Amino acid sequence: MGLYSDLFYSAEAESLLAERATLTRMLQAEAALALAQSKAGIIPDSAASIISACCTIDYFDIKRLKSEMHLGGNAAIPMVSQLIRTVKNNDFEASKYVHLGATSQDIVDTALVLAIKDFTVWLEERTDQLLDRLKVLTVAHRSTVMIGRTLLQQAKPITFGLKTSAWLQTILDSKERLAESKKRVLQIQLSGAVGSGSQFLNEKVRAEFGLNLGLENRAPWQTSRGNLVEWLSNLSILTSELGKIAKDISLLMQTEIGEVFEGAASGKGGSTTMPHKRNPVTCSLMIANAHRVPHLLASVMSGMMQEHERSAGLWHAEWEPAEQLMRLAAGSLEKSIQLIENLEVDQERMLQNLEVTQGLIYAENISLLLSARMGKGNAHEWVEKACKLALKEKKHLKKIVEESTVEIEQLDDLFNPLNSIGQSIQLIDQILKRYEDQL
Amino acid sequence: MGLYSDLFYSAEAESLLAERATLTRMLQAEAALALAQSKAGIIPDSAASIISACCTIDYFDIKRLKSEMHLGGNAAIPMVSQLIRTVKNNDFEASKYVHLGATSQDIVDTALVLAIKDFTVWLEERTDQLLDRLKVLTVAHRSTVMIGRTLLQQAKPITFGLKTSAWLQTILDSKERLAESKKRVLQIQLSGAVGSGSQFLNEKVRAEFGLNLGLENRAPWQTSRGNLVEWLSNLSILTSELGKIAKDISLLMQTEIGEVFEGAASGKGGSTTMPHKRNPVTCSLMIANAHRVPHLLASVMSGMMQEHERSAGLWHAEWEPAEQLMRLAAGSLEKSIQLIENLEVDQERMLQNLEVTQGLIYAENISLLLSARMGKGNAHEWVEKACKLALKEKKHLKKIVEESTVEIEQLDDLFNPLNSIGQSIQLIDQILKRYEDQL
Amino acid sequence: MGLYSDLFYSAEAESLLAERATLTRMLQAEAALALAQSKAGIIPDSAASIISACCTIDYFDIKRLKSEMHLGGNAAIPMVSQLIRTVKNNDFEASKYVHLGATSQDIVDTALVLAIKDFTVWLEERTDQLLDRLKVLTVAHRSTVMIGRTLLQQAKPITFGLKTSAWLQTILDSKERLAESKKRVLQIQLSGAVGSGSQFLNEKVRAEFGLNLGLENRAPWQTSRGNLVEWLSNLSILTSELGKIAKDISLLMQTEIGEVFEGAASGKGGSTTMPHKRNPVTCSLMIANAHRVPHLLASVMSGMMQEHERSAGLWHAEWEPAEQLMRLAAGSLEKSIQLIENLEVDQERMLQNLEVTQGLIYAENISLLLSARMGKGNAHEWVEKACKLALKEKKHLKKIVEESTVEIEQLDDLFNPLNSIGQSIQLIDQILKRYEDQL
Amino acid sequence: MGLYSDLFYSAEAESLLAERATLTRMLQAEAALALAQSKAGIIPDSAASIISACCTIDYFDIKRLKSEMHLGGNAAIPMVSQLIRTVKNNDFEASKYVHLGATSQDIVDTALVLAIKDFTVWLEERTDQLLDRLKVLTVAHRSTVMIGRTLLQQAKPITFGLKTSAWLQTILDSKERLAESKKRVLQIQLSGAVGSGSQFLNEKVRAEFGLNLGLENRAPWQTSRGNLVEWLSNLSILTSELGKIAKDISLLMQTEIGEVFEGAASGKGGSTTMPHKRNPVTCSLMIANAHRVPHLLASVMSGMMQEHERSAGLWHAEWEPAEQLMRLAAGSLEKSIQLIENLEVDQERMLQNLEVTQGLIYAENISLLLSARMGKGNAHEWVEKACKLALKEKKHLKKIVEESTVEIEQLDDLFNPLNSIGQSIQLIDQILKRYEDQL
Repeated sequence: MGLYSDLFYSAEAESLLAERATLTRMLQAEAALALAQSKAGIIPDSAASIISACCTIDYFDIKRLKSEMHLGGNAAIPMVSQLIRTVKNNDFEASKYVHLGATSQDIVDTALVLAIKDFTVWLEERTDQLLDRLKVLTVAHRSTVMIGRTLLQQAKPITFGLKTSAWLQTILDSKERLAESKKRVLQIQLSGAVGSGSQFLNEKVRAEFGLNLGLENRAPWQTSRGNLVEWLSNLSILTSELGKIAKDISLLMQTEIGEVFEGAASGKGGSTTMPHKRNPVTCSLMIANAHRVPHLLASVMSGMMQEHERSAGLWHAEWEPAEQLMRLAAGSLEKSIQLIENLEVDQERMLQNLEVTQGLIYAENISLLLSARMGKGNAHEWVEKACKLALKEKKHLKKIVEESTVEIEQLDDLFNPLNSIGQSIQLIDQILKRYEDQL
Repeated sequence: MGLYSDLFYSAEAESLLAERATLTRMLQAEAALALAQSKAGIIPDSAASIISACCTIDYFDIKRLKSEMHLGGNAAIPMVSQLIRTVKNNDFEASKYVHLGATSQDIVDTALVLAIKDFTVWLEERTDQLLDRLKVLTVAHRSTVMIGRTLLQQAKPITFGLKTSAWLQTILDSKERLAESKKRVLQIQLSGAVGSGSQFLNEKVRAEFGLNLGLENRAPWQTSRGNLVEWLSNLSILTSELGKIAKDISLLMQTEIGEVFEGAASGKGGSTTMPHKRNPVTCSLMIANAHRVPHLLASVMSGMMQEHERSAGLWHAEWEPAEQLMRLAAGSLEKSIQLIENLEVDQERMLQNLEVTQGLIYAENISLLLSARMGKGNAHEWVEKACKLALKEKKHLKKIVEESTVEIEQLDDLFNPLNSIGQSIQLIDQILKRYEDQL
Repeated sequence: MGLYSDLFYSAEAESLLAERATLTRMLQAEAALALAQSKAGIIPDSAASIISACCTIDYFDIKRLKSEMHLGGNAAIPMVSQLIRTVKNNDFEASKYVHLGATSQDIVDTALVLAIKDFTVWLEERTDQLLDRLKVLTVAHRSTVMIGRTLLQQAKPITFGLKTSAWLQTILDSKERLAESKKRVLQIQLSGAVGSGSQFLNEKVRAEFGLNLGLENRAPWQTSRGNLVEWLSNLSILTSELGKIAKDISLLMQTEIGEVFEGAASGKGGSTTMPHKRNPVTCSLMIANAHRVPHLLASVMSGMMQEHERSAGLWHAEWEPAEQLMRLAAGSLEKSIQLIENLEVDQERMLQNLEVTQGLIYAENISLLLSARMGKGNAHEWVEKACKLALKEKKHLKKIVEESTVEIEQLDDLFNPLNSIGQSIQLIDQILKRYEDQL
Repeated sequence: MGLYSDLFYSAEAESLLAERATLTRMLQAEAALALAQSKAGIIPDSAASIISACCTIDYFDIKRLKSEMHLGGNAAIPMVSQLIRTVKNNDFEASKYVHLGATSQDIVDTALVLAIKDFTVWLEERTDQLLDRLKVLTVAHRSTVMIGRTLLQQAKPITFGLKTSAWLQTILDSKERLAESKKRVLQIQLSGAVGSGSQFLNEKVRAEFGLNLGLENRAPWQTSRGNLVEWLSNLSILTSELGKIAKDISLLMQTEIGEVFEGAASGKGGSTTMPHKRNPVTCSLMIANAHRVPHLLASVMSGMMQEHERSAGLWHAEWEPAEQLMRLAAGSLEKSIQLIENLEVDQERMLQNLEVTQGLIYAENISLLLSARMGKGNAHEWVEKACKLALKEKKHLKKIVEESTVEIEQLDDLFNPLNSIGQSIQLIDQILKRYEDQL
């Protein structure tokens, strides 16, 4: 799958989406169709058995199949040809019942849905692993103070757990929304040449086909791609949320900040000529993946205006981007688990960075205290002056206050980050509770 | 709102999204905050009353507000300045409690959610109208035979109702998915400078704030944009589905096809020098809108990697595209109702077009019949020859069959489109049932 | 390269962009660097010879290289490791001079530019072939009348040559703009870890490196991706123009229109159960490709805000989409040559379709003639009435005019399409001249 | 133009692109057409004079024009109606010659090109201003040492001038490429209903029309949008390059880095409760704009597959995104001039940041020196150990070396950033020379 097969992707997910796996699922659909038609009394049981037995990828010449694809413009046509040939070799009569009443899109679309079904099992398991790692990280750093940053500027203290609880929350949301869209996307597509079904594809056959494959049987959706796009969009959102985590970590890894690091692995992210470097290699890959998915989604979504009962081109344009989006999402998810599991947090550096502004981040604390004494306006003015003096003389604000005429008891408390984290703990606990509740 | 304000958009939705409406909602958030803080015993009731009373758009100098926006980079900063000034003029003491503990993003994001809330009410009502029109159209044309088309080629007969039931179905899906995502997006954003809340923004305040505004109170989502993107994506999908309807109609309106037409309005879509033209004007606009939304969505989604506790740029990049997406969706939805309501269907032309291939679309019917007699292979071969002869001699296939040695009783039945529409009626009825069930 | 390797793509271009070809070009860059450094007196000639000799893809373990890529996040790091090992096995001393002073991005970016260089040679040759085919088609159909269509409605007559000359013109424009952007993109990237060059990468080395590789030596462009994006954009435009050709042909192939067809190949585009179908298979694939490229371009372009001296993620996000864009462009170009070469034009059907409106497309001709007699307003009114009558009575407009009181000599001339093609011939000839001039 | 009219945009460019300006340019096209037709002897001179005189925006009811636009789906149809009415009021005879032979698209497209022409004049002037500011900045900081950063990690020293010279270079490239694409886009569109021209739009008329408007007269391009898309793409690239500058500055403004700042303006970017903040407000807006343009471009580019002689929807989809792209580009360009002009550079902080790693960024210098003495392998190993010791003992690397057994004369030179900037000065001077050469 190209030069970067081991870089951006997940080996496990790649195996689910490989060429062979796709063709296997198409054959699974053909087999399910034959069995459904025999159950419905439309074709002989014996024919269904033989067809089903022939739906084995090992009997197929994949290279030839690929080389013939351009004649009809999709993978089902040459696959059905080979299947008929194989069945004929076993039982001429049975060969008449191969792919009976179905159209290429029935097979290709159903195989895509089956891929989504397999992928979803993997995805859900991995998402739960990630959630668990994020929970552990959040619990561990519930009270680890650090500076909060807005517009890339130091703002006010938070705890690292508050940051990670926000990450946790986004993955919980993702899980919820992927579960909801799953029920809409996991549907069979089986409605023949123009989506009308036929005597060979009646309701009984459709129902059995769905049962055989573990898929819902709602209405045909040949040129109604909304449910597919919805699911892909939710997958893109998950990937983007993982990208946000990676973005934050890559920024925290900056040499001048140095608060959080990807776990060190032998030979990873380092540079022999620049021994101080700790490159955010995994984060970069997750950012790259997150950067790409919205465009793949736009590619698929902007192809929704599919003409009539089958599109000339827009259907074809879906195949690779839809799969590519899944591959990138899987890559990011797999990487994120390792990333969170092995994350190194430098609490000491976090404390040091809280001192970079020499106390200015606590100015509001003094302002609030003095407001009670001298009125809000005066307090504000006094503190503003003190801050300017601190900046000018490059002194710590606490020192400036101490040297001033205003007397403040327990001044240390005002400059203690733990007293400035607002409702961080309560907010974290709410999210942790939500995590527990959904288990 | 520019030269095309009356072209692509809905006047009703425009009024919901106008500059003045946006600012009004920001003031609504400020008022709700003050009231919540008084309820929680944090600020005096009298102050809350005065602040709340001052949160009236008429007191504001919008032009000035806009011109000062570049200093802080958002609309909340100059709005709060003006609000403080107004409150001060009424009660100096109360002015200290304006916007207490809140950050610009709290106000801007909450106002956006309130816009979505208002928009959703409008959208749901209009969606139900469209669903009703689509239902009526589907019922009316349940048995109206026409040719189904794949890859822009005539394929096999369907009914027009099957086509419109597929449209109906996509809007039902859209309604379902927008309802699900609504619950995730309609949340307050209120968590102060770094998302940690504070003594002024404690859980009590957050809860009251949500109650005041009719919004959920979950966790802060300053740099967790997934729920917003999800809802926008679902709105894009709706717009794309409307685009698919418009695309189909525009293709059916082609001079050489002429089966379905936008309702004629005086002066609409015609051309004085080309009297035969019946331009798909409304469809073109709906196609244009559908063409644009996926890119607006990609713009917002690709901005999800927002840094730390507030982004330097990606948050700002959201504002216009998110609103523009809503405006285009509304425009398409409003247009679609008129379009479907006034659609003209030429059943006679549909019948004529079924004859364009001179019977070739019924070839399979003969093939199936003969299979029983002479075996599938022979039948197939025989029909293929007959078709070639028909094409060569430019004769109707029925004629060729009649002139052949093969005798077929009730040949007319095989060439009757109503006998070739598969399960169209059953599939339509299932969707109509789903429509009824959700009412 | 996946299930669709033979479907959307060009085998020739695939071989240029294959994994092995990419690595070969990276080695070519390493060899060119060593030779340039020896020429500049920085490393021993003998070392350069040995290094250069070792830069042979056959000596490399590609599988291992790929599996180690995630450690450093790019292909150059494990490649250089293997190269050092290979050189060491031959000459320990020489191994010290491998990749001297260079950074991974120097090698990866230069290899990308070399790929563009090779690709461009192929592209230019193929573009000239396409231009030739389009010229031949245009000359052949300079006077072949057909209906021009706007908003999918019949409008007024043109010639088929006018349509194809517009296609020809877009490819001429593309050729021009790709040639212009080529000079900006075909530059070496060689500037070391932070883009500053070094004693090992001085101006002499850079100049020799460029000479060795046949590339320009301008300034480093590590995080200045504009020239690359420009070239990719121009390639996207070419692909989109090819998509426009395919779109037009697919519409002309509609059963109800049937004016132009993809050349028939055995087994291509047909359907056994629907013998009348002539699916636009090649057009669908070209439309699919054109549909995808703008999103790949957006993916790359939106990654241009690369941080500092090398990006954490945005550089990585470029690799696959940039290459994928090239692959799709090549696929479309190759397909287009066959498509145009084998295009079947049904002039008779074109003439028949000119009669679909029963003369209404000529209404303006009558209007113009009568204007001279009875004034523009009256003429217009008279013709409008006549058209309405024709529509109402389903009669040919000529018949209506003949039956009216107005006498028109040479009425046939007014209803002759060849008299209604405006300046088609002159416009065609201008474009043909432009074609000849650029040869 | 909405709530953010003063935020993301340029007031000067807004006035060029305002509704009124657009309609004025459409009237300019109508006037030029009449004058061209009189020059070509097709319409009376007097009629042309009157028509031309009536092409004055003040005579038009814009509100009505907008409200009628949905009937025909574009702005030209209601505009021509009003124009005819106005001319009629002056001279009934002349009114017959309004818009003679032209189609709506001729007027709308030509007006767009005229907008691009006006916009280009503004753009080129502003680009030259920006280039000048970047040149001044580069010259000033040719030797200002700072750390170069890759993957957001400190790497090796560069000069700030090297960074700004790379910015300068990208704008030079942009200027070059916009100039080249300008010649292709500044063309008239005048070819009537189906692009074939007519007796009223012959070559003479087309030529005069072009002369009147200062535009090239090549072939019609109704559904050949490549040249327009090319120019828009180049404008997007410019905006993205400006975004890269803003991204770099926003990162350098981080509290923990603090090397470069947006110029302080009263009330700009500050926070009363967080006095230490220096928000990158202008950078955020430029990043936001750069973030949005690739999606607007994708929107336009993916609409290139326009059907036949005029598209049903894709043409319409172009209007707003094309203009919006221009507006965002102008906003960023204008902001960038101020940004660069007022940039504050803290050279002292740059020097301090060079010490953050305690000398590790100079490790390679020692390694290179020792290689000559003890061989590359041994040198490398020795330095690696020293670095590890420095990290472990939190000592400066120079100290570690001093305390070691290895004796190095002029050790200070090895730890002097000015000795580690490679070819920075030479590379800067090459770009400055290129700047001077193009003046």
